[in-house]
Amino acid sequence: MHLACLDLEGVLVPEIWINVALRTGIEELRLTTRDLPDYDELMRHRLAILDANGIGLPMIQKVIRGMGPLPGAADFLDWLRRRAQVVILSDTFYEFAMPLMAQLGYPALLCHRLDVADDRIVGYRLRQPDSKRAAVKAFHELNFRVVAAGDSYNDTGMLSEAEAGILINPPDNVVSDFPQFPVARSYDELRESFRSALGALD
Amino acid sequence: MHLACLDLEGVLVPEIWINVALRTGIEELRLTTRDLPDYDELMRHRLAILDANGIGLPMIQKVIRGMGPLPGAADFLDWLRRRAQVVILSDTFYEFAMPLMAQLGYPALLCHRLDVADDRIVGYRLRQPDSKRAAVKAFHELNFRVVAAGDSYNDTGMLSEAEAGILINPPDNVVSDFPQFPVARSYDELRESFRSALGALD
Repeated sequence: MHLACLDLEGVLVPEIWINVALRTGIEELRLTTRDLPDYDELMRHRLAILDANGIGLPMIQKVIRGMGPLPGAADFLDWLRRRAQVVILSDTFYEFAMPLMAQLGYPALLCHRLDVADDRIVGYRLRQPDSKRAAVKAFHELNFRVVAAGDSYNDTGMLSEAEAGILINPPDNVVSDFPQFPVARSYDELRESFRSALGALD
Repeated sequence: MHLACLDLEGVLVPEIWINVALRTGIEELRLTTRDLPDYDELMRHRLAILDANGIGLPMIQKVIRGMGPLPGAADFLDWLRRRAQVVILSDTFYEFAMPLMAQLGYPALLCHRLDVADDRIVGYRLRQPDSKRAAVKAFHELNFRVVAAGDSYNDTGMLSEAEAGILINPPDNVVSDFPQFPVARSYDELRESFRSALGALD
């Protein structure tokens, strides 16, 4: 029995922080863990910037809703849900993702949560460390075999833990660091990779 | 962070075997574990009856597709998916459930699997024993808190394991054996029970 686990940002929806930066014009929100390697420091910095610019949760949700999923993402997801049970594993926050989930027909999403008070984002709660890999392990305990797809370093744990891992539109350094995973460059290629990986599990 | 776990038959869709019996006119398919307590014996009996009547998987899937979900089920599920991540935990088989899942917008479903050869159902594979309770335990390991709803004895493991359990249209003996669970008799009451249970977890 098979599950398909998908990363969210870069796979089904745009990178959220980068696009919030673009749409709000606040350049500093483009910082990533490449610029500030300490995730907690980065998040505190981002939340302070939102606060300084008077951006509360409703405004950021409106910005995120306006992004929409990536072109072709909803069709791809519907195709996959007809063939496998799908669970989205993401390091984003429910409060950010839900406006986009609505546009994808509410697939099951396992991610993290923000602390919000009077519409201000005052903090965040990571559900657990290495949460994507932990989820694949939990599905293994339930006797599922897993095919996982993602685009970046924080996905390689789940890709390695799964019976089959697929990279979709990854940056070159991820491809060279993880040559064991097939690479898809479009939803058509991702369909082909899933068809082949799910077929091999039967 | 919360998950909602729902039983399938009797909660979102009709009881599959009983309705297959009704729609095919094969009375013997109405037997349940009340008549044949050994589940394996019951299943072998059911599969033998299907075979004797020349009913293969495509025909039974057509019958199941014709049942459709329970009236109001799709609306209830959409309501719930806007408020919580939903995973369906069922003791049915993917091959039976998928025609109904299509009509419910493909929520994530964890259940069992049939062995099929040349469209004949030749056996079945249970994913694991006590699978609904095991799934709730796995979600707990992922730091989710769970509200579960179901209608019968095979749901009481997941209802007990969850932070909150809700009975929906249960038979009287389940109500008297499990007085600790609130009882909902309609989707409106089930919405109210979920609203209250999810709110108490916040």
